[in-house]
Amino acid sequence: MPSPQALFFDVFGTCVDWRSAVEALVSQMVREKGCQIDSFAFADAWRARYQPAMQEIRAGRRSYADLDVLHRENLDATLREFGLTDRFDVHDRADLNKAWEKLTPWPDTVAGLSRLKSRFIIAPCSNGSIALMTRLSKFGNLPWDCILGAGLARAYKPDPQAYLRSCAALQLDPAEVMMVAAHNDDLAAARNAGLQTCFIPRTIEYGPDQTTDLRAESDWEIVARDLEDLALHLAC
Amino acid sequence: MPSPQALFFDVFGTCVDWRSAVEALVSQMVREKGCQIDSFAFADAWRARYQPAMQEIRAGRRSYADLDVLHRENLDATLREFGLTDRFDVHDRADLNKAWEKLTPWPDTVAGLSRLKSRFIIAPCSNGSIALMTRLSKFGNLPWDCILGAGLARAYKPDPQAYLRSCAALQLDPAEVMMVAAHNDDLAAARNAGLQTCFIPRTIEYGPDQTTDLRAESDWEIVARDLEDLALHLAC
Repeated sequence: MPSPQALFFDVFGTCVDWRSAVEALVSQMVREKGCQIDSFAFADAWRARYQPAMQEIRAGRRSYADLDVLHRENLDATLREFGLTDRFDVHDRADLNKAWEKLTPWPDTVAGLSRLKSRFIIAPCSNGSIALMTRLSKFGNLPWDCILGAGLARAYKPDPQAYLRSCAALQLDPAEVMMVAAHNDDLAAARNAGLQTCFIPRTIEYGPDQTTDLRAESDWEIVARDLEDLALHLAC
Repeated sequence: MPSPQALFFDVFGTCVDWRSAVEALVSQMVREKGCQIDSFAFADAWRARYQPAMQEIRAGRRSYADLDVLHRENLDATLREFGLTDRFDVHDRADLNKAWEKLTPWPDTVAGLSRLKSRFIIAPCSNGSIALMTRLSKFGNLPWDCILGAGLARAYKPDPQAYLRSCAALQLDPAEVMMVAAHNDDLAAARNAGLQTCFIPRTIEYGPDQTTDLRAESDWEIVARDLEDLALHLAC
C-alpha cells in the first residue's frame, strides 16, 4: 500500500457525536416551552430524514442544495411528526438548526487529527456544507488543512463525484488519498472511486442499542480503534 | 461599522513573501546548473506574467484553469525570456513551479492570524488554487478555518464572483465579511462587491524599490500596520 498524501474524513459520527448534542438542544428547548417528548427519539427522527433528503438530489430529482437547507426542511417535518409545529416559530427553528454547528468531537478526535496533520493533508469529506463544516470545526477545534466534500463538489456521498472532485481540488489521484469513516457504505463508495480506506468503529453513534457498523465489513486497507490508533498505524 | 463575521485575506504579498522564496529557489537551481542570471529579475518576470494570464480567463477568452497551470505556463515563457529553455527539463520545471507552495509568511502573519482566529472565521480569498493554498498554508502554518477564493469560485479576483462566491460558501452577506489585503485594487474590487475592507502595507513585497501600494489609496474601513496590529484594531 503506497502511503497516502491526504486523509479525508467523514465527520458526522466519525469525528463528532451528533446525537448527544442534537438531543441536548432539543431537550432544553422543549423543556423551556413546557412540552414533553422523547428528545432522543426526536434527534433520531430528524436524522432519519437525512438520507432520503439527499437521495432526491443524488437521483437528479432536485438540484443541489446545501445540507443546512435540507436539515431545516427535515426539522419542519420532524416538528410536525412530534406535534410541535405550533410551538417552534421561525427563530426557534433557526436556533435549533444550528445544533449541527455545535457537535462535540469524540475524545480521541482532536488529538488524533493533530497527530495525523503532522504528516498528511487532512480534510473533511463530509456531506455538510462548507459553512457548516467551517463553523462545526471552529466549535470543536478540528484542525483541518482545508474543507472539501459535498459543499465543494456539489454532490452528496456516496455519489462518486463527492470523492473525486475533492481529490481533484488537491490535484491528487484518488489512490493517493485515504477515506476514513465509521460507515462501511461510505468506504465502499470511496473504494469504488479509487481511494484507499480506513474503518474506525463508532459503536454508540446511534446510542447504546446501535446495530449497524459495529465492525469492518470488508478488507479496508486499515481498521483502527479510533483516530489516535490510526495515527499509530500511520507512524504519526 | 458592524463587526464582520469573517475575515478574508489576500495571500501572495499580504500574508507571505513570495519574491524572496521564489528568488531563492531560482538562484539555487540556476547555480546548480552552472548558469548565471539575475534571479530577482527572473522572479519579477515570472510574476509579471501573472495578471495577463488571469486576464485571459477573466475576459472569457479562456475557461477557468487553476493558478498552478498558469504558473507553469508562465514559467516556460520566463525560461525562454532568460535563454534557459534547454537547461530546465520537465522535472526541473515541476520542481521550480512548487516554489509557490513554499513561501515564507511575513513575521507578523502567523501570530496575527492566530489572534484573529479567536474571534472571526479566517480564510484566504486568494487567486491560488485550493491545492496551492492548502500546501502553502501547511508549509507556513497558516491557521485558516477554511480555504476560499478563486479555486472555489472558479473566478479570478478582481472578478466580483471570486469574492461573492466565497461569501456565499459561508452563507454570509458580503457586508458581514472584511477583505484584508496589501493591494488597493483588490480592496476596491472587494468594496464594489459589498465587502468591508482593510489595508495592510507590505512595502517590500516587490523589493526595496517598490513604488506601488505603499499606502492606503482610499478610505478603507481599517488601515493597520500589519496583521498583529489588525488584531488590536479588532480587539483580539
